[in-house]
Amino acid sequence: MLQVSERGRAMPLSPYRKLTPYADAAKQRGVQVYHLNIGQPDIETPPAAVAAVQQAHIGVLEYSPTAGRPSYRRKLAAYYQRAGIAVQPDDILVTAGGSEAILFALLCCLNPGDELIVPEPFYGAYTAFAVATGVRIVPVAATIDNGYALPPIAAFEEKIGPRTRALLVCNPNNPTGYVYTRAELQALLDLCRHHHLYLLSDEAYREFCYAGEYVSALHLPGAAEHVVLLDTISKRYSACGARIGALVTQNPALQAAAFRFAQMRVSPPGLAQLLAEAAAELPDSYFDHAKAEYQARRDRMVARLQAMPGVQCPVPGGAFYIMARLPVDNAERFAQWLLEEFQHQGHTVMISPAAGFYATPGAGHNEVRLAYVINQPAIDAAMICLAEGLRQYPGRTAAAGA
Amino acid sequence: MLQVSERGRAMPLSPYRKLTPYADAAKQRGVQVYHLNIGQPDIETPPAAVAAVQQAHIGVLEYSPTAGRPSYRRKLAAYYQRAGIAVQPDDILVTAGGSEAILFALLCCLNPGDELIVPEPFYGAYTAFAVATGVRIVPVAATIDNGYALPPIAAFEEKIGPRTRALLVCNPNNPTGYVYTRAELQALLDLCRHHHLYLLSDEAYREFCYAGEYVSALHLPGAAEHVVLLDTISKRYSACGARIGALVTQNPALQAAAFRFAQMRVSPPGLAQLLAEAAAELPDSYFDHAKAEYQARRDRMVARLQAMPGVQCPVPGGAFYIMARLPVDNAERFAQWLLEEFQHQGHTVMISPAAGFYATPGAGHNEVRLAYVINQPAIDAAMICLAEGLRQYPGRTAAAGA
Repeated sequence: MLQVSERGRAMPLSPYRKLTPYADAAKQRGVQVYHLNIGQPDIETPPAAVAAVQQAHIGVLEYSPTAGRPSYRRKLAAYYQRAGIAVQPDDILVTAGGSEAILFALLCCLNPGDELIVPEPFYGAYTAFAVATGVRIVPVAATIDNGYALPPIAAFEEKIGPRTRALLVCNPNNPTGYVYTRAELQALLDLCRHHHLYLLSDEAYREFCYAGEYVSALHLPGAAEHVVLLDTISKRYSACGARIGALVTQNPALQAAAFRFAQMRVSPPGLAQLLAEAAAELPDSYFDHAKAEYQARRDRMVARLQAMPGVQCPVPGGAFYIMARLPVDNAERFAQWLLEEFQHQGHTVMISPAAGFYATPGAGHNEVRLAYVINQPAIDAAMICLAEGLRQYPGRTAAAGA
Repeated sequence: MLQVSERGRAMPLSPYRKLTPYADAAKQRGVQVYHLNIGQPDIETPPAAVAAVQQAHIGVLEYSPTAGRPSYRRKLAAYYQRAGIAVQPDDILVTAGGSEAILFALLCCLNPGDELIVPEPFYGAYTAFAVATGVRIVPVAATIDNGYALPPIAAFEEKIGPRTRALLVCNPNNPTGYVYTRAELQALLDLCRHHHLYLLSDEAYREFCYAGEYVSALHLPGAAEHVVLLDTISKRYSACGARIGALVTQNPALQAAAFRFAQMRVSPPGLAQLLAEAAAELPDSYFDHAKAEYQARRDRMVARLQAMPGVQCPVPGGAFYIMARLPVDNAERFAQWLLEEFQHQGHTVMISPAAGFYATPGAGHNEVRLAYVINQPAIDAAMICLAEGLRQYPGRTAAAGA
């Protein structure tokens, strides 16, 4: 019989996707659904960046160079330099979204069967990339009880074995919103240097830190050989649909290998590079508005959540996600119930059960991720729905607890 | 020591890339280089398609749905239906170029270590995708002596072993320009049905057939379960930089698996889908101009090549490539010599040595691929250079021969 490959069968359906039919059905019943479940920003894409595509003269839409347009790589290097990240254009491979940067990094740094250590909870797509590349993810548990800070270095060290090739951190973190400190990152890099491992650093949310300094893995002394920065313009400029990212490393052998993988797809998206190039020239003040707006939303949502009986919710320092532990038997059942059986004055809310962000079975079963990518009145309305849902939910437990 | 992965080291540099420094050096010496080495069409991208992007209202450039915009999938299905390919929107996954369609097809159909049978010569990037996915390419030799027609089915059958999972054909063929007949394709499909294999059909050059009918693998009875059509708008609409392709299959389990892989990168490029959607609505007559131009170029180049002493050159039926066997010791050395040591009245020509299109070591060592993507006067000038180069080249052999 003709069968899909084993890796094709092992590839999971995204957790978000599982709930979509229930959300669609709710909408068909006339219920308004507040989407807190995906990281699709609602902030306007910079008009100057859109205009760069719309006003360009395009006669023949040619392949761009494999590593990206030289002018874009120069401007992107300048953007990094403004952020204190001393990279050159040759250190940058422009990719089709941050996704392709993750794919190339796993292909270049690990062989099939090799192990990648990741603090959990982590961005669900990492699991999918690991299946696609035959890599084994080894989780190290972070906990809501200290706001998902970096687990102790000893917990990482004890997971290092003969097949370990790399550590992966997302900073600021998706899904937790945690922003790693300089000391935490330096400790991770030191561990990588000691054990000859790569440090993959997904910094998609760099601009969105609401307290303290932001530290990139490439800010650290000794980073050059070890660090691979995985980046994207998706969140930075509200341009998720552009599909422009970057793999940045000062390790020339690794950059050369990533380039050879990139040759198989000839070039990154061309139109969107025009947008990205114009965006890279925006002044740093461009981020002030979005950052202030996200911070106000975070404060509003955290305050609402912390006021709900039995809800545990640390204050995240960055990104636009909040993790919360809810007084429910099972967050996935609760999320489905909110869409399928609940409504409050014609409204309900769609949330992400956190189980999809954990590799350890059962972990995070009563946690959820909430994205604050809707405006403040909508956040208020969504929080009213959530509070009311928690009151009515038949599987409610006495209080949040492990 | 920190090392690039084995697969990263195994990933070859594209053959084109190896010659690029010599071409750059020639240009710096003031020599004009005619590029016959890459398949970057010079035909204008349809202005109506570019306008669709440039006139769209874009407030927030959001992720598009993972499988592509529903409106684009509908219009693309209608395009296929006009070509007699009876697929529905649900049979289509929109991808980041034909490249991503190849990647997903290999991931879904084969496991690491599985074998993919491909008639050689074949598109060089297949090798790169095979390295990335851990797939082993098993070549079946076609020959210039019958214009690179499909090798006998028995030659495929004897390569089928316990790890064989799929056959891959490119039709019209890159690099040979050969257009497979209905009988050849049906024989391949029958073989796949008998041995429970997938038939991957890369049809990037569908519109560019200059003689006889064009047959898609999806035109054949019995194709639904077995055939995966790999497609792109790159060549069809001169839109290589858009990076929009499609994976098309009527096998629902396979389409579902491809969708799960696609979820890891969330969505295909958004801006370029607007371009592709407008292009999909162009009338079939749109292709008349490009087709007539390519055919005139082909005829002109073939006539010139066949007039060169010792050159063997079949007439290709499609795409925009010509393969020729040259009276030289080694086509790679000749190509480098043309760039490094030769010029004719300030001009030279860059050609693709065919070795990069063969998996069998030594095969095609005196063959080259020439792309007719420059205008007719430039083709004349390039052919004068090539003829003169063949006259002067120190490694010239008596006549073309294996």
